[in-house]
Amino acid sequence: MAETARKQNDPHPLERLGTLLDSDMRAVNAIILGKMQSPVEIIPQLAGHLIAAGGKRIRPLLTLACTRLYGYEGDRPYRLAASVEFIHTATLLHDDVVDDSGERRGRPSANAVFGNLSSILVGDFLFSRAFQLMVDDGSLEVLRILSDASAIIAQGEVMQMMTTGNIKTTFEDYEEVVKAKTAALFAAACEIGPIIAGEDTEAASAMCEYGMNLGIAFQIADDVLDYSAQREKLGKTIGDDFREGKVTAPVLIALSEADDNERAFWARVLAGEEAQSESDLARAQAILAKHDACSKGMTLARTYADKALCALQAAPAGDLRNALADIAGFAVEREY
Amino acid sequence: MAETARKQNDPHPLERLGTLLDSDMRAVNAIILGKMQSPVEIIPQLAGHLIAAGGKRIRPLLTLACTRLYGYEGDRPYRLAASVEFIHTATLLHDDVVDDSGERRGRPSANAVFGNLSSILVGDFLFSRAFQLMVDDGSLEVLRILSDASAIIAQGEVMQMMTTGNIKTTFEDYEEVVKAKTAALFAAACEIGPIIAGEDTEAASAMCEYGMNLGIAFQIADDVLDYSAQREKLGKTIGDDFREGKVTAPVLIALSEADDNERAFWARVLAGEEAQSESDLARAQAILAKHDACSKGMTLARTYADKALCALQAAPAGDLRNALADIAGFAVEREY
Repeated sequence: MAETARKQNDPHPLERLGTLLDSDMRAVNAIILGKMQSPVEIIPQLAGHLIAAGGKRIRPLLTLACTRLYGYEGDRPYRLAASVEFIHTATLLHDDVVDDSGERRGRPSANAVFGNLSSILVGDFLFSRAFQLMVDDGSLEVLRILSDASAIIAQGEVMQMMTTGNIKTTFEDYEEVVKAKTAALFAAACEIGPIIAGEDTEAASAMCEYGMNLGIAFQIADDVLDYSAQREKLGKTIGDDFREGKVTAPVLIALSEADDNERAFWARVLAGEEAQSESDLARAQAILAKHDACSKGMTLARTYADKALCALQAAPAGDLRNALADIAGFAVEREY
Repeated sequence: MAETARKQNDPHPLERLGTLLDSDMRAVNAIILGKMQSPVEIIPQLAGHLIAAGGKRIRPLLTLACTRLYGYEGDRPYRLAASVEFIHTATLLHDDVVDDSGERRGRPSANAVFGNLSSILVGDFLFSRAFQLMVDDGSLEVLRILSDASAIIAQGEVMQMMTTGNIKTTFEDYEEVVKAKTAALFAAACEIGPIIAGEDTEAASAMCEYGMNLGIAFQIADDVLDYSAQREKLGKTIGDDFREGKVTAPVLIALSEADDNERAFWARVLAGEEAQSESDLARAQAILAKHDACSKGMTLARTYADKALCALQAAPAGDLRNALADIAGFAVEREY
């Protein structure tokens, strides 16, 4: 699709969306900063560390874009966009504990226990704050969508834990995890836009569909890029999923074509019963290259980006719709 | 107060309240069992383990009692009582991770890491479920009260973490922790009763006041009983707070009268920089006995139980009010 093609010199699609929504995002950031305050000092310190560190703020941008897309001009999306970001930040904090627990897979712990405790509790605090923000807004429909998404995210995280290290994981299991742990919040962030704007359920469903497919595309692409030699060249960390034993798209593609040796390799390195050696990641990359697993994974991600673009056709045409389309392209064209 | 006196042969006040609210509690339990289900098997397993194990179900009982007290006869308190119990269970699950982290204070970990991950994520799931139940009910006022309480609980847990092992903790710090981590949810569980029953804010404030003071009384009594020789005789575990380095009421009372030796003892055993020895708990009990710290702690707890009884005077007289009064008595008269 022509809309997804992006020239090297174009500004980053997320930055372009950020520019279109600049004053809106300032208002959201002010709420984020204000609402992470607490008389308990360590809470704003820890939350601020994570939130100020930035991240792409893609979820609040989606909420803003999907509200403005339908012509609503008021302040309502600000609190709700902040709420979506808090839910995301809370899950990140709890993920850190999960991923960095340090007693799993024989790696030294990156988080001191003090850090772990803080991560759990500050996550709980931000999660509560997210609901306070929704209550401030007062829409039970939005509360329904975001509380449902929160329950699904938690289920997705548990499912991911159950599939970690298990090479019998099916593609269906994997897609279910991706939908639940990542795409459900993308979908909810988008779906509430038309609802805030007072649109009918058809518009909300279309944006939900866009967000869901965008989220799946993003996550699959992320999972592929975790093994990317190109990303490694850019000085970025790779192999996090590999070290954590996550069974992701590229691994599943390679497993579907694996000979006995390769299957034994994946079973050994992902199960985490013995420590991985220095050369294991390089061997994993070589096996993935042999099966062309990364480009096949990206092709799969692209089918979801295309579905996202298709759902987007239902939205009013204009700069914002174009920017949202570019993000779907970016999700699967990026090299980092 | 005569209302608080309890004869040895009386049935347990919580059981008596449970009997008064028997059919209501069955309905609440059915919702709890139904809503902890998930296609992800480990979720109902883990949640069921904790929830079925029982506990006293005091919070949902309070919500039911404070609703029926005002003559409301419909089904609305069921979902909300279940929601309150889910919030409590979620915080317990996260507490387990915090308290049993095993890298702190040199004790071996009681939770395998798999258990820790599960505890965090299943806690998140139950917390989300709690909000789904509130959304099902549809009262923004109730959503406000319980989301506020949730944020306060998380802050209280962080505060507790900050005071752990620190003998410079003041009584004000301690009371703030107790209010936030325990009493806020007792208060919210009670406050929503009159709101469900359609009462005015005065009734809600009175029940909030009752719950808050009851919660403080319960927690202080719990903290005293953690050092109780009587409880030890009954075969119950004691010394959990001591091993975790928590600075609680009996310790603060003993610290306020401590000589240099005793102060050095508390600093050493609570700071957790070196492992406690076998005899440390016995020495702690001896120091507490010397300063009469446990009975002074119980006296303090009793002042809060009395405040709870006082607030209760605003509620309609009858069996339920009497039962709630007995619970305030029980909170501070129990030996286990």
